[in-house]
Formats: sequence, C-alpha cells, structure tokens
Amino acid sequence: MRADSGVFITFEGCEGAGKSTVIEHILNILDSEGRRVIKTREPGGIDIAEKIRTIILNPEHIKMEERTEALLYAAARRQHLMEKVVPALEQGYIVLCDRFIDSSLAYQGYARGIGMEEVYNINEFAIGEYMPDRTIYLDIVPERGLSRIHQNKEREFNRLDQETIEFHKKVFEAYHLLLERFPNRMFKIDADQSVELVVDEAVTHIQSLFND
Amino acid sequence: MRADSGVFITFEGCEGAGKSTVIEHILNILDSEGRRVIKTREPGGIDIAEKIRTIILNPEHIKMEERTEALLYAAARRQHLMEKVVPALEQGYIVLCDRFIDSSLAYQGYARGIGMEEVYNINEFAIGEYMPDRTIYLDIVPERGLSRIHQNKEREFNRLDQETIEFHKKVFEAYHLLLERFPNRMFKIDADQSVELVVDEAVTHIQSLFND
Repeated sequence: MRADSGVFITFEGCEGAGKSTVIEHILNILDSEGRRVIKTREPGGIDIAEKIRTIILNPEHIKMEERTEALLYAAARRQHLMEKVVPALEQGYIVLCDRFIDSSLAYQGYARGIGMEEVYNINEFAIGEYMPDRTIYLDIVPERGLSRIHQNKEREFNRLDQETIEFHKKVFEAYHLLLERFPNRMFKIDADQSVELVVDEAVTHIQSLFND
Repeated sequence: MRADSGVFITFEGCEGAGKSTVIEHILNILDSEGRRVIKTREPGGIDIAEKIRTIILNPEHIKMEERTEALLYAAARRQHLMEKVVPALEQGYIVLCDRFIDSSLAYQGYARGIGMEEVYNINEFAIGEYMPDRTIYLDIVPERGLSRIHQNKEREFNRLDQETIEFHKKVFEAYHLLLERFPNRMFKIDADQSVELVVDEAVTHIQSLFND
C-alpha cells in the first residue's frame, strides 16, 4: 500500500492509437471538474532521464544491445517516476502518464524477444510500489494505427514508426497478453472509434475509481 | 553452460586493495607463459558504456536516485560485456576484469542499502550466462586500504574515496557475505601482504583452473 493520496493512471497502445490526443481531452475534462490533475510522459523534462533517453535514441549507437536498451529505459523510468510522478501523487494529484511499464513489456519484452518476465523483473526494481492504479489501453490493430499516423502530416515520425508491420503486430499481441495477465489493472477501450467516444469511455471509467 | 572456450576472471575488493597492480602482474605472468590473456575494466572504452558512465559520475546529478544509478551500472556492464568480454571469451582468451557484478552487490546492494537480492536480479538480467568463472577477492580492512590510497600520491581520487569510513566498512562486510554465498566462485586472498605474495597466490589459483 502506498502512503500517498494520488491516483496514478497510465495510457498504453500501439502507434497511432491516439493516446496523446485522448490524454489531452481527459486532462481538460478532469481539470474542468475541479480535480487536481497533471499529464506527463517519460522522460518528462527530467534532466537525468532526458540524458539517458539521448543515449537510447542516438542513431550512432548501432551496437546498442537489446538488454542495455531495456535497462536504460528502466533507469529513465525510475528517475522520471521519483522526480515527477511521486511528488505529484504525494500532493494528491491524478497523474496521467503516456506509456509506462507495459510499453517496455510489449516492445522490449515481447516484440524484441527478451521475454516479458525478464523485462518485468527489472521494471519492478525500477518502480517498486508504484505500479499504476489503472492502465487505460487504447486498442487498435496496427494497420489502422499506422495508416492514421501516415495521414497526420504534423506528427513527427519516430524510430518506432519505421519498424516493420510484423513488429507492430507483435506489440499488439503483447498488449492482449498483458490484458489477460492484469485484468484488474488494465482497462481496454476500442480506439477505432471517434475521439469523443474514446474520451467519454475513459473519463467514465476514471470517475468510477473515485466512487470506489 | 557457455559455448566459448575462454576463462572469465573478475577481481574484487575494497578501495586500496591493490587490484589494478595485481591484475597487471598477473597479466604479464600469464602472457609470458604464452597464454592468450587480456585485462579490462568497465566501461572499458566502449562508447555506449562510457556515455552511460558519464551520466553516473556527473557531479551535477545530485538528484540521481540510487536505483537509477544501479540500473545505469547494469546497463553499462551489459554493453561492455557483450562488446568486449564475450568476443574475447569466444576467441578463447582469459579475460581479467577489474570489478564486475559483486561490486554492484557490495556497493549499491549492501552499502547503499537497496538490497543485495534486488541488485542481483537486475545484474542477472544484464549478464545472463556470463557469470564469472572465478572471482578473486583481495581482502583488506578498509582502514588499511584507505591509508594505502592516501600514501599513493599518483593515484587519482575518485568519488568513492570520499565516502565515509562507515560506508567502506559496509562494503567490506558485504564482500564477506558474498564469500559465504558464492564459496565456489569466489576465492579470497589476504591483500595485506606484499604484492609478490598476492600475485603468486592468485596465479597459482588461476593455473589450477586449467588443470581441472
């Protein structure tokens, strides 16, 4: 049991699931209800985490080992968690976080083939008692998600967008395994519908947490 | 079981135990016997590992979390292992490595208080099947080791030299716990005697490995 009074909600999904748009809307709705809420994403402007991220994303690092990468993600996660998320939770905030442990399980653990259990272990070391209270998973098949990205010319392409469709299918598969493994923590929303409907379902679910 | 034909030997001990001098002598003796041998230490000139080390040692990073630090050490260890140690082992080399997993267990796990088991788990992720074949532990009480360092004006002071004597006593305690836990892998040598005697004992032990 954590000592803080905050609520820690993470958002997960394949590329193009619409996480950032959905989070922005949820933030505004909860804020307009007078709730104390912030949004964040790793590395979240945390100096040490940003520097770790720079090493991970440096295109010169072609020799980067998969397990080195997974450990670096876990290190950046720890620092962002302790410097930004935990202080907010301790002040009673609702923290909406774009990607967290499940992304590492899906991307490094499953799609890259290290193993979800092994990646879970190092992330458990990194996050300790701060498992998310709830994780909202935006479900969309990779083909649909990627076609959305390609339509959106303003969105910057990142390294993951360049992976093969097979890679993204594995990530999708992984999220469905995680839904089975964490049925109480993870809440699935069909992301292949209008933003309004997705946001509505997410907000209703989040509000239900406060009535518990 | 590993597939390579090399021998992986690590060296451990408190500050001032004389590891680098002893390793240098052992390298020369084994080399003069015609054995294929190299010495290394983390980060060992490996670009990615060096960059990770820069983050760890940056004095501006006063907010560095202990677990972030432990994950970064494990990440640098993985990269140095896979880029430098494993290729040498695969070519049949004897690899003499100054500090490895046990340093993390003693310094971060025990002396900093994270817990040896927890730090062991993330290091197990980092090193996989590459546990050292043998670990030579140079035993010296912290007071003696530190007084040696202070006498040696050529040696550069590092961040760890500035820790309190209590910290170094904990590290010493930790190594003795590790000797109990890994009696087959770890071999203790009294380092409070002449370099010649220490080297002699180490070389005799290493040679016995080839006769097994």
